[in-house]
This record gives sequence, structure tokens and C-alpha cells, in this order.
Amino acid sequence: MLAPSWAGSAVARLTGDAAYLRAMLDAEAALTRALAALGLAPETAAAAVTAVTHRLNPRDLALRARAAGNPVVPLVAELTAAVAGRDPDAAPYVHRGATSQDILDTATMLVGARALDTVLADLSRTADALRRTAAEHRDTPMAGRTLTQHAVPTTFGLKAAGWRSLVLDARDRLCAVRAALPAQLGGAAGTLSAFHAYAEADGRVPAPDLGVRLLAAYAAETGLAEPALPWHTLRTPVADLAGALAFTAGALGKMAADVLTLTRTETGELAEGSGGGGSSRTESGGSSAMPHKANPVRATLIAAAARQVPAQAAVLYGSLAAEDERPAGAWHAEWQPLREALRLVGGAARDAAELAAGLRVRPHRMRQNLDTTRGLIVTERLAAALAPLLGRAEARRTLEAAARRTAEEGIALSEALGPDVLAKAQALPDGAPERFPDGIPEGSPQGCLRQLLDPTGYLGSAGALVDRALARHPSPQRNPQEPTP
Amino acid sequence: MLAPSWAGSAVARLTGDAAYLRAMLDAEAALTRALAALGLAPETAAAAVTAVTHRLNPRDLALRARAAGNPVVPLVAELTAAVAGRDPDAAPYVHRGATSQDILDTATMLVGARALDTVLADLSRTADALRRTAAEHRDTPMAGRTLTQHAVPTTFGLKAAGWRSLVLDARDRLCAVRAALPAQLGGAAGTLSAFHAYAEADGRVPAPDLGVRLLAAYAAETGLAEPALPWHTLRTPVADLAGALAFTAGALGKMAADVLTLTRTETGELAEGSGGGGSSRTESGGSSAMPHKANPVRATLIAAAARQVPAQAAVLYGSLAAEDERPAGAWHAEWQPLREALRLVGGAARDAAELAAGLRVRPHRMRQNLDTTRGLIVTERLAAALAPLLGRAEARRTLEAAARRTAEEGIALSEALGPDVLAKAQALPDGAPERFPDGIPEGSPQGCLRQLLDPTGYLGSAGALVDRALARHPSPQRNPQEPTP
Amino acid sequence: MLAPSWAGSAVARLTGDAAYLRAMLDAEAALTRALAALGLAPETAAAAVTAVTHRLNPRDLALRARAAGNPVVPLVAELTAAVAGRDPDAAPYVHRGATSQDILDTATMLVGARALDTVLADLSRTADALRRTAAEHRDTPMAGRTLTQHAVPTTFGLKAAGWRSLVLDARDRLCAVRAALPAQLGGAAGTLSAFHAYAEADGRVPAPDLGVRLLAAYAAETGLAEPALPWHTLRTPVADLAGALAFTAGALGKMAADVLTLTRTETGELAEGSGGGGSSRTESGGSSAMPHKANPVRATLIAAAARQVPAQAAVLYGSLAAEDERPAGAWHAEWQPLREALRLVGGAARDAAELAAGLRVRPHRMRQNLDTTRGLIVTERLAAALAPLLGRAEARRTLEAAARRTAEEGIALSEALGPDVLAKAQALPDGAPERFPDGIPEGSPQGCLRQLLDPTGYLGSAGALVDRALARHPSPQRNPQEPTP
Amino acid sequence: MLAPSWAGSAVARLTGDAAYLRAMLDAEAALTRALAALGLAPETAAAAVTAVTHRLNPRDLALRARAAGNPVVPLVAELTAAVAGRDPDAAPYVHRGATSQDILDTATMLVGARALDTVLADLSRTADALRRTAAEHRDTPMAGRTLTQHAVPTTFGLKAAGWRSLVLDARDRLCAVRAALPAQLGGAAGTLSAFHAYAEADGRVPAPDLGVRLLAAYAAETGLAEPALPWHTLRTPVADLAGALAFTAGALGKMAADVLTLTRTETGELAEGSGGGGSSRTESGGSSAMPHKANPVRATLIAAAARQVPAQAAVLYGSLAAEDERPAGAWHAEWQPLREALRLVGGAARDAAELAAGLRVRPHRMRQNLDTTRGLIVTERLAAALAPLLGRAEARRTLEAAARRTAEEGIALSEALGPDVLAKAQALPDGAPERFPDGIPEGSPQGCLRQLLDPTGYLGSAGALVDRALARHPSPQRNPQEPTP
Repeated sequence: MLAPSWAGSAVARLTGDAAYLRAMLDAEAALTRALAALGLAPETAAAAVTAVTHRLNPRDLALRARAAGNPVVPLVAELTAAVAGRDPDAAPYVHRGATSQDILDTATMLVGARALDTVLADLSRTADALRRTAAEHRDTPMAGRTLTQHAVPTTFGLKAAGWRSLVLDARDRLCAVRAALPAQLGGAAGTLSAFHAYAEADGRVPAPDLGVRLLAAYAAETGLAEPALPWHTLRTPVADLAGALAFTAGALGKMAADVLTLTRTETGELAEGSGGGGSSRTESGGSSAMPHKANPVRATLIAAAARQVPAQAAVLYGSLAAEDERPAGAWHAEWQPLREALRLVGGAARDAAELAAGLRVRPHRMRQNLDTTRGLIVTERLAAALAPLLGRAEARRTLEAAARRTAEEGIALSEALGPDVLAKAQALPDGAPERFPDGIPEGSPQGCLRQLLDPTGYLGSAGALVDRALARHPSPQRNPQEPTP
Repeated sequence: MLAPSWAGSAVARLTGDAAYLRAMLDAEAALTRALAALGLAPETAAAAVTAVTHRLNPRDLALRARAAGNPVVPLVAELTAAVAGRDPDAAPYVHRGATSQDILDTATMLVGARALDTVLADLSRTADALRRTAAEHRDTPMAGRTLTQHAVPTTFGLKAAGWRSLVLDARDRLCAVRAALPAQLGGAAGTLSAFHAYAEADGRVPAPDLGVRLLAAYAAETGLAEPALPWHTLRTPVADLAGALAFTAGALGKMAADVLTLTRTETGELAEGSGGGGSSRTESGGSSAMPHKANPVRATLIAAAARQVPAQAAVLYGSLAAEDERPAGAWHAEWQPLREALRLVGGAARDAAELAAGLRVRPHRMRQNLDTTRGLIVTERLAAALAPLLGRAEARRTLEAAARRTAEEGIALSEALGPDVLAKAQALPDGAPERFPDGIPEGSPQGCLRQLLDPTGYLGSAGALVDRALARHPSPQRNPQEPTP
Repeated sequence: MLAPSWAGSAVARLTGDAAYLRAMLDAEAALTRALAALGLAPETAAAAVTAVTHRLNPRDLALRARAAGNPVVPLVAELTAAVAGRDPDAAPYVHRGATSQDILDTATMLVGARALDTVLADLSRTADALRRTAAEHRDTPMAGRTLTQHAVPTTFGLKAAGWRSLVLDARDRLCAVRAALPAQLGGAAGTLSAFHAYAEADGRVPAPDLGVRLLAAYAAETGLAEPALPWHTLRTPVADLAGALAFTAGALGKMAADVLTLTRTETGELAEGSGGGGSSRTESGGSSAMPHKANPVRATLIAAAARQVPAQAAVLYGSLAAEDERPAGAWHAEWQPLREALRLVGGAARDAAELAAGLRVRPHRMRQNLDTTRGLIVTERLAAALAPLLGRAEARRTLEAAARRTAEEGIALSEALGPDVLAKAQALPDGAPERFPDGIPEGSPQGCLRQLLDPTGYLGSAGALVDRALARHPSPQRNPQEPTP
Repeated sequence: MLAPSWAGSAVARLTGDAAYLRAMLDAEAALTRALAALGLAPETAAAAVTAVTHRLNPRDLALRARAAGNPVVPLVAELTAAVAGRDPDAAPYVHRGATSQDILDTATMLVGARALDTVLADLSRTADALRRTAAEHRDTPMAGRTLTQHAVPTTFGLKAAGWRSLVLDARDRLCAVRAALPAQLGGAAGTLSAFHAYAEADGRVPAPDLGVRLLAAYAAETGLAEPALPWHTLRTPVADLAGALAFTAGALGKMAADVLTLTRTETGELAEGSGGGGSSRTESGGSSAMPHKANPVRATLIAAAARQVPAQAAVLYGSLAAEDERPAGAWHAEWQPLREALRLVGGAARDAAELAAGLRVRPHRMRQNLDTTRGLIVTERLAAALAPLLGRAEARRTLEAAARRTAEEGIALSEALGPDVLAKAQALPDGAPERFPDGIPEGSPQGCLRQLLDPTGYLGSAGALVDRALARHPSPQRNPQEPTP
């Protein structure tokens, strides 16, 4: 209820208690199938366990699991009882040889994989919408701002292309992490020794690499990657998730920060749209007390997520330093922060997709705002143009004085420059004459200055940069079954 | 002085003020060469600037830069004056068209690249030493511990192989980030417009993609990767560094956590060695007050670094959400945390290499400690073995009762099990008879139990896992000149 | 389900969605009563709203609130409808003049106050148990350990007194914060202007300080402190909570860190007890796979909490920098981290109380471990004693050589010191002769050395420090109705 | 060099290596004086050591200390040699009985105390300037903004009074922490046993509370508070510093966030002034490339600090959970983050004082911006006023429709409301007639509406709130010599 960032999103459902329990049941079923594949359990047991896991309702289990403190122990008890009811001979094979961490870690990776698939789809939608926006506004001029002040002109296309670039960076990182999410199986201390013990108890002489082969079979059954080693205390997968999620939250946070800035009442260059699709959250931008308000709700919630995920990631990176074969604290400190990070990023990705799809761009306000400083936004260009005429130092002095008068007296920079400079400007080269198709008097100082002072003509390589950025295509998703590199 | 984690390390030198200033000078020189390559500056100017940057002493500049608050502004002034002294015509080309952030960001990437090269070498040394250790102790049994308590046996080889696996994971991540570290050039707002303005002032009609081509030339001159876009506010490179550094600190922190645990006076399975090479820090493990102490200093400092870097990374991930074309705060908040993270990881990697090379392993103490619980460490195996004989539930009850007596009465588990169980154990299969080359009476309950109770015979797939882990080779370093993906 | 740290605790219930909704209803009722107290609403309306809020079931509201994204908006709709059903004239006074943030912030403070009351009680129980433990073990010697190694002896009483001292520090900080938790009322932008508008609409001329007086009346009705200003974007109360909660998690984390260290199998000086009261969590210390294990579960969960709360606090401190009259992100980023911090600390305080009450102390193992280093633990004392005889430098050299032999040859330090030192030790003063009531031959080197080598006689001021620490009494809780300082 | 936030500030000097070494020398001198006070050292030794510490140059020591890794060890060696040169009999009393941590922790508290005194003075200057500003602009109307959008009017006085309130909150918290900063003396493991050993070696029978009395004498000599217990691993003082520093950074960060927002080019309600006093940093707001720029540099640097300190605080809170009598990592992880937090806050406080003193307020722009929404900023008031006339629901519908037309058609809200509403408005009460001294036709709808639509007349209790907030006085600084509560 206190998490509007992700409440109601697909990821909320995919990371709820029921989703974790479903994933634990999937892990238990995969284990019995893997045992059967290696002849360590009868095929009938694997079939019985798999069938029962499909029938059990995670929601019923959730209540009991919540009471117990440790979700795996009551789950195994329930599952064993249910299997015994169907096939008493299958019951001893439930959870055989595994430790709670095997099941919980594997379930966490399954939950992560399922949540990331949704996030990746939302990032693709976001990138697509931003590609269209950037292409449409490739040449829409707006003020470039640094340290809150107008600096030089830029284009909205370049800004949107930059957002898309970050979204694709995030997508690349999440894709790579998603493909490498591994199954976990190590037994009590990562040696898989219980599987050897059960084989011995069945009268076999287990092969020295029994555990290695079982790990491979188990990974295949879960659909997750096969790890090189059990990772009880080698927490690479969790740390990688942490980093990619923090990156994604920040990448979307950049777009949100810009949207928030540009929708400020005085600026008004952007507005959040409805997000399309009859979203019930459309109205949440309104205010019960102030009928006129249209708040940038999605950008606000993305910004809120971007403030939280780095802290969750810090906890998860900190848990890498886990002593022994299971640490007393570091592992338990992962669970909730990882879930919360998945949820915050899941909500932010959903909101970003809606934000990007519905964004209202106001080129007219962008154009108006370019004139706010009455010419000051192009002093960089004038400094370059006047330097050959006046000398570098004198050009700078002249411009600083004119800039001061412009700001203080509220006049235009062209006026503040004065007749002397105008006269000198007669010697200015014409710049790019193709911009004057309709014949501004060639060589006239007014023409030159007007051209130099036109912010829409001082866009540098913005267009070329947009073209280049939009030529980048999302990288294909790697096959999730590849082994962890 | 308050940073023993990295004081005196190579990375300390590579990240000092002088190193940053050297990198800024390199960036300025690269810029003039790139301008020259595109015909935007005379070759003589590029040569003059490059020559002067090689001659300037960063240490002299550091004092002035420290006073100014912004390091680039006084640097440009100094550099311009020095160039003017050598070739007055070259002076106007110093820093032409660039903004301070271009130089500082590029310098930060150069510093990062140079620091990472040292870190990567230390990680390789660490991984090599751990490979040797893991191979040597492939079959050295020790207690596996979970939540501080003995669980089941494992091997020191598997533990060391796990450390190496994390070190290689860290190396892979740093390598990828290192190869992608990009040059930065965008001008005041990322459009590279000043370069167009200077070209116009020189009477040319700049090509629309002038900036794009200049960016490529500049990246080539710096030796850094070419970015797809100026990244003033698209901070992927910094965030990627943050994540890889936090990962590395945590990966080394896992090794440190285990070393600290295993060197505790009561455990004594490991001790820090001298680290070889006549390190002057050898003695720092001693205590002025207590002549007997030999502290695990390197592991302590690595652990201290692992506590700090995730927080620095959180700040850096937070800076992704940077508004406008230069944010008012987020960029400035990157500088010191990134430098500190590089230093902490640089120091930790140096300490890890020394720690891994000098680690003293005490198999005898490991063997002794395995017996601390008088047999309890193999109850998992007994539970599997007795289940077919007694039934699962009865086997568990029997073992729990025996475990309680073992703990409370200080007797051996074999004694606590009692004659009934011994009699039943006669029916136990022999297990792996090849472990009894010298002829323990086959089928005798004592023989079976002795075998089952031997912790050194319950190592599961540990050996096979070590073999598999050691078959992994460090990934080759990518060519740093590749474009950012 | 993934939060064993606090699942099932009283705080879990006090911070659930239903608890927040109950607090929001309380806030709404308090508002109408405050309006009535100032004549801005009829008393009948206040009575009707109050009655209805007592009747509404927060659990029913929770489902709807969760769907809406913003909990206040649907709550007001529900409440208005319910009030209209009872007294149509009262309906317009529901939520009159308030903004959502007024209700949510006030509710958050009410939830915080209720949760802290539970935490404070658990801390008092913890401090009481530790006082008893410290008193009982005032003179129980054990090894003092620094950087994992035995340093000099200390007492378990001093350690427990130190834990208690931190617990009282935490209690003091939480008490002060608890007493200052303020009500929130400011309207849309903190000017309380809507209350003026409604008064005007009713045909009155509102006093210029109408809002100030309403704020006081509202605070009195909520039972919270009266703030000097509306704190929409002056987030002192939240930041203070953050700091006190992070402190408490860390203070309990110190105790947990020591318990975890001292319960390690090889050390065995402490063990977690059952916590009394037939707690169903007793068994969670066991392991399904390993019948012998008794894990320090409570200490583990406290340690896990101590790893997470500082990160939540960092997010909350970061939210102080909130722009405008309501920030776009910083406020929303507070909700879940604050709730999570309350829960983690609530769970940790509960676990700490159980841990402290049930802790099993093993003086015998402490005494045994003191001898682990065969005398090295008192080299500091010997160095002081021998310095006058041998000279400082020579005394140190002698002890270092003896310490080396002790460690390497496994002999006792007394043996390693050799006959020369023994002879010189004849000149040693007798030390504290009262420690030899049964007459060790006065002046004999053996007697002196034996005395000097006895770790139980080298406890410094430990006893006096325990006495002093236990003389500290918990500070009384301040009256919650005091104004915020 | 990379820390413009604090480079060149007084705190930079007070927290440099030389300042730490000066504090360590002070701690060593205080120790010998405390020993002398208890008769454990000759007065001549105390005098000699004190004299020598005053003569030694910390800058010379810094170079050597940096090389050694541990600053205390080489410092003691240097100090002992220097003392021996002056009075050979005094040399053995240097550092007698202390451990490195005693000296470093005490020095850290001295550095903290000295740095905080500067910070407190800067906060007082800031609060004073803000008091003047708030009083001057008590009734200056401006737009209140929530979620980036105009909400209802407020005053700049209320905003400035809120900033001051946070600054005073920060000051209160720092004052309390400052007064409680304790000396540290515990010896190797917190029992002060070495002092007992030296007394014994001198032939005395030390009192059981020798250490307690020495601790008191030592605290008195350092000028710091006397702790109840040695706090080697009871890190309350460091955690309290962390919290108060994070609070202060955030409190100043709120002011900075508002300044940054209100100085944006389009808004222009505030501008950073020169900060007075011929600060050399005045120019740093300029840009080398763009002659017109005047960047809000101080607000930017404060905002950068506010992003970093919470992360440092999280590390410090995390270090509370310190195992044993000296932890292997947690203590070392405190040094640099605490210093960095002091510096960042020190720099931010200096910048805040300059910012507050020099702030340029532009009431004219505030007034202009109030009209940006052409009346929408008072819809809340209209909703209240029209509800009795039209019914609540109808009033809301009417206003929403008018608000939509206002926004979409660019007309004034009064126009959008239409003749029907105007007619009904004839029945509106007059509101506060005293606001129409020059006789607006009473009862005319135009008059009423004009009055209702005037944003400068809808300020609620803003003035009264300013008065109340400014009546708060800074709390007096507590006597630093009080014992820790």
C-alpha cells in the first residue's frame, strides 16, 4: 500500500509471496526430476512430485509459510504430505539431499528471471517510444541547460535519443544478467555430499562427480543456467542482479529527472500524458484539493524508485562478503532488498513505458524558452565569431559587458552589443549561407548578427548525433540456458 | 594517512592529484591533436601543446588547482601560458571548443583505466596463487560451517577454488568495464556546437557531423573507447565502474571474511603470511603492546574496504539520475566517491594478492577441528544410512537423541548411538570398499560405522568441483579501443 | 514471508497496511475534532466522523487502497460515504481543508509512535536481562580478542555491560525521537490556506493565525507533538527516526556480532537458549538435514537487520533535500524504507530480548579458551613486569622470542622463557599479595611467574567498570505531548 | 582537488593529516598528564612530553605516518625519541599503557570537536542571515509548488523560515553530539589492565578502579567528555556524529534544492550572490566558454554534499556492529568516511553561510510567476467559495472544466469560468473587506472574483507561521566537559 512505485504492476504479482512459493515448488519438482534423470529416484516419484506441485495452491501455503519464519521448512512438510497422499513411495524423494538454501536460492533466481522478462519487455517498449520521439524531434531546438542555467541550444531529439541510449544500456545489462541466472544446488555445505550419502544408502558406489552431474541435470530441469560451482557463499548472481537493477533505476531516473524539470510550470516544455490504454492510474496525477493540477506522477514515482534501489544494491553488494559455507546474516539480508529492488525497477519500467508512450512535447514552449535570455544562449558562438575581429580577450570582455547589460537592463543582447560591434561584425564571414535561402543581404552586419544570434541555427552536431544514436539496435536476448560465464 | 587500505599502493599514486592532472594534460593534448587531424588546428599547434604537456610537472599544478576549487580552469590557464611561451600561434588552440567537463571526465576515464590495469594485474596474481592453493589442498578436509556451526565436512581446496571463482568473476567484470571506458567530448551541452562555431569563425562551412568525427578522432588520440554519444549526463561509464568496483570489493571481501574466521585463535586453520617480497607492511600485523600478536592485517583491510565501496557505489548509481545537460550536484557528487572506490579496490587487490601468495594453511588444525563435535559433523550421512534400517522418522529420532547426549555428556557420537544401533548397522552396505585398502573386517558394524563416522570420507563431490572450477581460465582482456557497446 | 527478521513480531502487526489505515482514520477523526474545537465544524460532525472511523474495518479498506496506488484518496471517499450514511450534514467536513500528505504524514507518525512503544519495551527487557547477566558474570574471565586474535583477558561481565550500555544508548535516542513525533497539518503548500478559504466561504473573517491554532488543536487531538511549522518539506521527524533506528539496529548488531563469534563451534563460550515462553521459533535453530545443529538464529536475524537499516536510513536522510512545497520523488521514497526500518528494528528488538533472556553462558569454555595460547595472552603484563629488570627493549626482545617459540613449538610460555628469565624474575615484586591467601612461597620466581601468567588475575579495572556501567539507569520516557524542540 | 565542496574551507584544514597528528600529540600529552595526576608518572615526565608535543611539527610527521600505514606507531616512535632528547627519564612514560586505538579514537574526537565548532559557527551565521531574509520577505508572495506544479500561493518568508528551522534543527543535533564527544582510553581490550601492570611493576598495589579514575583524569586533560566505559567497540560517539552530520547535510540540502529550483533560468526568483567578503570563489560561478553564465555554484556544491554524506553515515552506522574487543574491519572502515563526512558538512556549512548572506531575492519575478497559470493557482480557494453556491460536486466540475479551458486555450481562469458563474458569484460574501481600502464596488461579482482570484490575498497563515518560526532561538551550546549522557 505504501509502494505506489510498483503496486499493481505485473512485477508486484511476479514477486509476491505466492510467486516465491510457486518458484519453490518448481525447484522441488525439478530436483526430483533431476534425481530421476540420474537414476537416484524412480521416474514415478519425479512424476508424482511434479504433478502435485502443479496442483498445490501457493496462496494457501503462503499463510502457513508466513507464520513459520522459514518458508522452505513448512513447504517441504506440506509437499511431502501431499505427495504421500498420491504415491506413498514417492514421499521420501521430496527435497532429498537438498538444503533449504538450495530451494530458496533457486526460487529467487526463477522469480528474478520471470520478473526480468517483464522488465525487459517494458524497457523495449520504452526504447521504441523514445526512438519515435527522438526521430520526430530530431531537429526541434530547445535550451540546453547546465547547473540550472541556459547554456547553449540543443535539440529535444538529442535529449530523447540520450534517454533511449540509457534505456538500451540498462536493457543490455539486464539481458546479460538474466541469461546467466543460475540454479543452485549444493547441499548443506556446497559439496553435494548428501546425494552421495543417499546413493550409498541405496547400495551404490557414487561416482566422484555425482554432484556435478546432478547440478547439470537440475539446472536443465529448472530452465536456469548451470553454475560452475554451488554458489551458497559465492553470490555473483545476486550481486549482478543488484548492479543491473540499480543501473536500470538510475537510467530511468535520468529520464524522469528531465521530465520533472521540463514540466515545471514555468518551463512547460513537456507534460505527462495519460499513458494510453485506459490506465486507471491516469487520474492519480490529479489533486483532490486543487482541480487544476496535473502532476507528473509517473516521473515522480520513477524518481522515487531511483532514490531507493542504489541503497538496496549496496546491501546486496555488501552481502558478497559472506563468511563460511553459509553466513550468519549476510544471506538473510539479501532476501527482502532483492525483492524490493525487483519491484521498484519493475514498477519504474512499467511507468517509464507509459511515460514514454504518452509524453506530450511542446515545441512552441521550447522555442519560447530559447528566447528567455534575449540572446545570451548564443554568447559562446559570438565569442568564437568575434575573436578573430576583436582579439580573444577583447571579444570576451565585450561579451561579458553586453551580457551584464542584457541581464540587468532587460534588453536584447543584440542591442547591448552596441554600434561598434555591429560595425565590426560587417567583416564577419557569412557562416552557412545555405541557411538564408530567401536572401538576407549578404555581408550586412545585421544579417550576420541575426544569423549568429538565432539559437535555432546553433545546434552543432545534434542531428548527426541523433542519427547515430538511433542506428543502435537493442541487443538480442541471450539464450537463458547458456552456462554462467 | 587514515586510509591504510590503500596508502602506499600503486593505485594510491595512480589516483593522486598529480595523476588526475597528468590525465587532464593528456586529454588537452589529445584534443589539439584531434583538431589537427580534422584540419581544425595546425599540426604545429598540436605538436606544441603535446610537447608542453609532457614537460609540465603535475605536482606544481596540483597546489594551484587545489586552491581554485575547479581543477580545469587553472590548468587551462597554466597550459595556455606555457604553450604561448613556446609557440604563441598555438595558444588559441588550447582547450578550444571544449568544456571543463570534457577534460575532467576524460581524465577520470584515463585515471580509471590506469588504475584498473593495476587492479587487474593484482587480481590475476591473486587468482594464480589461489589456483595453486586449491590444487594443493584439493583433498584437504576441513569443517564446513553454516550459521557459525559445523555442518558437514568440506575441503579447503573447494573453499579456495570458490575464492578464485569470485576473483575471476570480478576480473571479468572489470575487464569488460575497462575496455569500454570512453573519452568524453561534447562541449557546453553535448552538441559539440563550439567546434562548429570555431570552424565558422575560421570561414569554413562545417559538416553537420563535424562533432561526430571529432569525437572519434579524440577518442583515438586518448586511447579510450569511442562513445556513441557525449555522456555528460548519460553516466553509464561511471555507473559501470561503480558496479564492477563494488563487486570486486565484495568478492575479495568474501576471501577476507573466511580468512578472518579461520585465523581466529581458537580455530587457527589459517594464518596470514608475510606476503613475500620484503613488504614493509609485514610488521604491521604486530602490536606494540602485545609482543605475541600476529594480526590478519591484510584481511582486515580488505574487509574494511568491502564495507565502504558499496556505499560509494550507491552514490554513483544515484548520480545516474542527472537532470539537464549538466546536473547541479549529481556530477560533482561523483568525483570523490569514484576516486575513493578506485583506491579502496586498488588497495584491496594489492592486499589480496599478498594475502593469497603468503597464506599459511594448517591442515593439521583443520583435521583436529573436524573432531571438535565428536562425530556430529557427519549426522547427515548417518541419517541417510540408517533410514533404510530404522525408518526415516525413527532414524532421525535416534540421531537427535544421540546428538543431544554427545553434546551434553561430552562423549563420542559413536558411543552415544548405543549397542542397538550398532547391531542394526551390521546390515549397512559397505559403502565405498576401496577406502579400506588395508582390510577393515568387511561387514562388521564397527567397520561400517567407523567408515561412516570418518569425516574425511564424507566430502561428496568436492574434488570434482575443484577440478571443474580450476579448469576455468581468466578471460582475455578486450581491446580497449573497441567502441562502447 | 521473506522477512524472518520481523515476521510474526508485534511490530509486523503495528506496521501493516491495516495499521496505517487505522492511523489515517485516527488522523481524519482528529482533524474534524480540531475543526470543531475552533468552531470550524459542528461538534456533531466531529462526533459522527469519530464514531464512523471507529466502526470502519481497516482490513476491508486495505484491499481497495492497495488497488488505488494512493491510500488517502480512496480512504477519504469511503469515509465520506460512511459518514454521509450516518449524518449527511457531517460529510462535507471529512478531510476538509487537508491535503493527502497531512493525513499520511500524521498517520506515519502515529504508526511510528505505536511501533516505537513496543520497541522501547523490548529494549527495556533486553537491558534488564543484560544487567542480570553482567552482574552475575562480573568476574567471569574470558579472552579479550582484537582483530580475531587473543589480546589480553577481560570479563564476560564487562562485555555484557557494554552491550547493555549500547542498548540504553539506543533506548535514549528512540525515547527522545518518540516524544517529539509531531502531527502534520499544512494544507496544499504548508500555509493552511484552505482552512482560511472554508472559513471565508462560511462568511467569517479568519484570524491571521487561524492555521497556527488549528495545528495546535489537531496535534492535541492526535496525541502527537505540536510542530512549530508544517513539515511537508522539513523532514526532521523522519530523519530523526531514521538515525535512531539505524543506531538501534547497530547497537543490537554489536551484541549479535559477539554472540555469533562466541558461539562458533570451536569457541563455544555462548549458546542461544530457547528464549523462554514456548516460542514457536525455538525450533528454527534446528536443521532438517543435520539433526545435531543448533543455530544462533536470533543473533543471525539481528545481524541481518543491522546490515539493512543503515541503507534505509541513508535513503531517508537523502530525502531531507526535498525541493519545493512537496518534492517529486523524495517524499514517496520515504514511505517503504521507513516502514521497513521500523519492522527490521522491531523484529531485532524482539529477538534481542529473547536472546538476552535465554543466553547460555559457559564460563568453563571461557576459562579453557584463555589457555589456548599457553600464556601468550598475558605477554603485555610480562612486558611491564620485566622492563625494570631487563630494560624495555631487552624485555620486549625476550618476550618476542619466547612468544615465537611458544607458538611454533607448542610449549607453554613459562617454559619458553627459559631459566635466565626465571632467575631474573626472582627480583620481581610480589604484585597483589592478597591473591595468594594460601601462601605461595613469597619471592620465588615460580610463584611470581605463576601469578603473572595467570590470565584470571589480569583483569585490570574490569570489575569497577562493570559496577559503574550497571549504575546507569534507563532514562525516563519524556511526555509525548511536549512540543518538538 | 576533486572535492570542491570542501576544498579551501576551514574544515579542510581542521581535518587534514596535520590536524589529526596534532590531535594525536594532544592525546599523548594528555595521557602523561593524567598519569602524573594519579601518581603513575612523574610530573616532570608529563611536562616534558607536553612541551615536546607543542614543539613537534605535524607536517613533518605526516609524511612518515603516511608511509607507515598506521599513523600511531611512527608517531609514538618520533615522540619518544624527541622526549628522550629532552629528558631521558621521561621517555618510558610516552604512550605508557595505551593502545593505538586509544590515541586515534581520542584524536578523532578532538578533530571532530574542532571541526564541529567551525560548522556550528557557520550554521549560526546561516540561521542569522535566514532570519533577516525571512523577516524581510514575511509577506512576499510566491507560488507554492508541489510535484513541480504550481499549487497554491505561499510566501518567500515562510520558505526562508523553514530553511532556518532546519538549520536550527541541525545545529541542535550537532551541539548535543559535540558536547558529548568523549575521550577514549581502554588499553588493549578495554580493561585498562596495562595501567595496572605498570603500577604493579612499579611496586604498587593498584586500586581496583585505577582505570576508572585514570579515564576521568585523561578526559579532563583532553577537554573531552568522560565516557562511562571505554568505547573501543561501543561506537556510540561515531554513530551519533554520523547521524548529526547526515542530518546537517540534508538540512542544508533542502535549502540548496530550493535555491537551485528557483534560480532556473525560466523561474529566476532567486540568484546566488557573491557571498560577500571578497570570496575568491565568487568567480567560480562563471563559465570559461559561456560569458553570460552565472551558475548557482554554492547550492550545487551543497547539493553534491547532501548526496554523499548519507552514504558515509550508512557505513558508520554499519560499523556499530563490531565484534570482539576490536573488530577486524569495522573500525578501520570508520576513519575515512568520518573524515569525509566532516569535510563535506564543513564545506556545505561554509557555502550555506555565504549563500544565505548573499542571496538575491527577486519579488518581481515571484509576482510574475504567480500569474503564469492565469488564475489556476487559486482554484482551491474558488472551490471552497463556490461550494455553498453550486454544491460541492457541481463546483468541482465547473472548476475542472474552467481549468481545462484555461490551460488549453491560454485564457484567464476568470474568463473561462463564464457568465453563469459570475452571476452566481454575486452571492459570494465579501471575504476580508479590509483588503479593499480603495473601494471596490461591494458585492459586485467582478469585485468578489477579482479578490478571490488575487493570489497575493490567499496566503493562509503564512505570516503567523513566519512569526512563530522566527521566535525560536538557537539553543545554547552545552558545556563540552559534561559526561556523556
